[in-house]
Amino acid sequence: MQFKISKELILQIEELILSKKDQQLEALLNDMHHADIAEILDELDFDEATYIFKILDSEKTAEILLELEDDLRENILSRLSPKEIAEELDELDTDDAADIIAELSTDIKNEVISELIDVEHAKDIVDLLRYDEDTAGGLMGKELVKVNENWNVLTCVKEMRIQAENVSRVHSIYVVDDENRLKGRLSLKDLLTTSTKTPISEVYIPKVDYVRVDTEDVEVARIMQKYDLEAIPVVDELGRLVGRITIDDIVDVIKDEADKDYQLAAGISQDVEADDSILELTKARLPWLVLALLGGFVSVRVLGLFEGAMTEHGNLFFFTPLIAAMAGNVGVQSSAIIVQGLANNTLSGSLFSRLIKEISLSLLNGVILASILFLGSHFLLNVELIIGVIVTSALISVIIIASLIGTFVPLLLNKFGIDPALATGPFITTSNDICGILIYFSIAKLILGF
Amino acid sequence: MQFKISKELILQIEELILSKKDQQLEALLNDMHHADIAEILDELDFDEATYIFKILDSEKTAEILLELEDDLRENILSRLSPKEIAEELDELDTDDAADIIAELSTDIKNEVISELIDVEHAKDIVDLLRYDEDTAGGLMGKELVKVNENWNVLTCVKEMRIQAENVSRVHSIYVVDDENRLKGRLSLKDLLTTSTKTPISEVYIPKVDYVRVDTEDVEVARIMQKYDLEAIPVVDELGRLVGRITIDDIVDVIKDEADKDYQLAAGISQDVEADDSILELTKARLPWLVLALLGGFVSVRVLGLFEGAMTEHGNLFFFTPLIAAMAGNVGVQSSAIIVQGLANNTLSGSLFSRLIKEISLSLLNGVILASILFLGSHFLLNVELIIGVIVTSALISVIIIASLIGTFVPLLLNKFGIDPALATGPFITTSNDICGILIYFSIAKLILGF
Repeated sequence: MQFKISKELILQIEELILSKKDQQLEALLNDMHHADIAEILDELDFDEATYIFKILDSEKTAEILLELEDDLRENILSRLSPKEIAEELDELDTDDAADIIAELSTDIKNEVISELIDVEHAKDIVDLLRYDEDTAGGLMGKELVKVNENWNVLTCVKEMRIQAENVSRVHSIYVVDDENRLKGRLSLKDLLTTSTKTPISEVYIPKVDYVRVDTEDVEVARIMQKYDLEAIPVVDELGRLVGRITIDDIVDVIKDEADKDYQLAAGISQDVEADDSILELTKARLPWLVLALLGGFVSVRVLGLFEGAMTEHGNLFFFTPLIAAMAGNVGVQSSAIIVQGLANNTLSGSLFSRLIKEISLSLLNGVILASILFLGSHFLLNVELIIGVIVTSALISVIIIASLIGTFVPLLLNKFGIDPALATGPFITTSNDICGILIYFSIAKLILGF
Repeated sequence: MQFKISKELILQIEELILSKKDQQLEALLNDMHHADIAEILDELDFDEATYIFKILDSEKTAEILLELEDDLRENILSRLSPKEIAEELDELDTDDAADIIAELSTDIKNEVISELIDVEHAKDIVDLLRYDEDTAGGLMGKELVKVNENWNVLTCVKEMRIQAENVSRVHSIYVVDDENRLKGRLSLKDLLTTSTKTPISEVYIPKVDYVRVDTEDVEVARIMQKYDLEAIPVVDELGRLVGRITIDDIVDVIKDEADKDYQLAAGISQDVEADDSILELTKARLPWLVLALLGGFVSVRVLGLFEGAMTEHGNLFFFTPLIAAMAGNVGVQSSAIIVQGLANNTLSGSLFSRLIKEISLSLLNGVILASILFLGSHFLLNVELIIGVIVTSALISVIIIASLIGTFVPLLLNKFGIDPALATGPFITTSNDICGILIYFSIAKLILGF
């Protein structure tokens, strides 16, 4: 069943476009899943993609729109009239429609909204635009099935049939009171297994997980993962049911969050992809490189302080990249473990116990690595014994300090509400490089007295 | 609604355990979600956790077991008899039960299986144990609702009510033929909106996404994400319906995969958490550090080759950490973008176009950074002009080479079926450090002729 784009398929489609065989093209594409068509459009050039977009009907194109890469979507939308955009949005769930509207400029936004045919749908979309995109309100959709606690199952089933027409997937049936306040839920299983005469108040489950409109998206993701939920209702400040969030939106949040942490650890500060433009990639990469370069200036100055060692103990300088690299690597390891622990909520215990653990861990690693270094410096690198001793004791100290910096900087940032992932990558390697070099030459100076 | 463990709660529970107030303890815990209880048990010491585990009934403890940290689960299982473990498993879905059994030693495994009360359930679990845990077979559960294409909706609803009793969440209703071959699906929405007299063959949707038992877990995740599926049926080699995978299991696969890539980028080679033992953390971290250390040996040797520069141009050596760090940072950025592109399937275009792009990108970054370095070396670091020129031209060359290594090593690994994420982190920084230093001093030697 797996769909794979082949070069042949792309060629075939390009030929059909060139010869304007719209019917054949439509027949070919209508058989495909919208996510597959989106993949194809991403491979075509912009004019071809727009051509295809215009011959398919809006039921299909609306779904395709959601799956396109951002640039292409923006481009295609810029070629559609407000009325045409509104036709697309009429086909979409409220949350997806709101996401697309949010990407439009303010003028077009209002025009598009005024062109929406289904007034209820339009009201729901406008309501969703109020919320910050990083909150439950920004994630939620308005499509849900809800019943009144005062109904009986028969009324309920009738009402639900009507509501279900507008809901593509029925996750849970929420129970509300006359004020629309969330009271509980009915499971689909109950629906299948309970007699239709039972009153709702007797069968509903009063325990229901929910989030508030202003709950952060990552917190919603954490809750839904922890409690294995496929949908969660969203309530306003007064406890009234205003929407629901489904697991597919949460999968995106989890993926984005993990991608963001990964990119920060690699020194990339914006959400970019390999296929983005050179300018976008530069904007994402350059700031961290400039930071690293400035750190490099500091390391040059630090080394300059120990110029005196050059005449008699020049080979000390051969070890600076080694010491700096070890400091950087150890720091990144420590910080990555903390950042991941914070993200996954798996850190427990006090700061003090973490301190003890990190020191023991780095002592253990440090002693093993220092032994290898000591033997290596003697047998492989043939340096004098005293240099071996200096390098070895510097390595142990550097590993301990670097792992402490790597551990506590992200914890500190987190404490002050700053994303701890900022402390990974170039930031930690650069500061650890400098610390490492300083420690190394200080020890050398202490022992050799240059 | 958010649950947060407080110190007071832990103290209260510890006191109740100490004074053996089992009833109060039970009352307190029975009100909580099993995932919350698991969090509490992770905070308690092992004896206390076991104590609580023994007073709760198996319906609750079975679910708790799934949520515990691996170490604690292993510990608790080791204190239970095969019969007691079987009681837990009888409460679980087949896929979860199989996961737990797979963790047991072979002797206990067989004893536990023979103690399972529900024979059908036991058969399903044993069947699941056959599959590799990284495949669709290893992820799937046996709980599903299926109907025969030859039934009518009335028979169907009756049968489904019986089946639904054993299925905690009804995702889709699968339609099979007399040989149990997957033919299509019925949506829950159809169920709510179709008259009960319609024959199944008329209402079912013949298009259904599915995976085979041997499909890799990451591929299943990709498909379910791409097509926004909440459950997917699994078929065997003959197309017979053998199980289903739900999105919550896929969320774990996505999370694990992202965590693994993140850890590899940080130089951590096993799946570890901050709270793991020092020995486990060392096993995960030390190999990469040893690799980096050996790389450091090489850099010492490389620098030794240029010892001749020390007498007259000693300050060249002050720039080695800067050059090495920039090479490392650029390499990590490039490789991270490629690894993520490969993981998310967003790389398009030919190798050649990628080469051109990477060179342009690094030229742009290189020129900007080199300008900063040139100005900095002159005004901040006060080195001679000739050294400034050497360092600056070395930086541009190093950035281009490092970004090419960072781009093509992961692509190459991927081509040979090796996880490209291995090329991130210490591997890329170490090799780029060495290359960077070699390039830098070669340029210096060429210009200064020492």
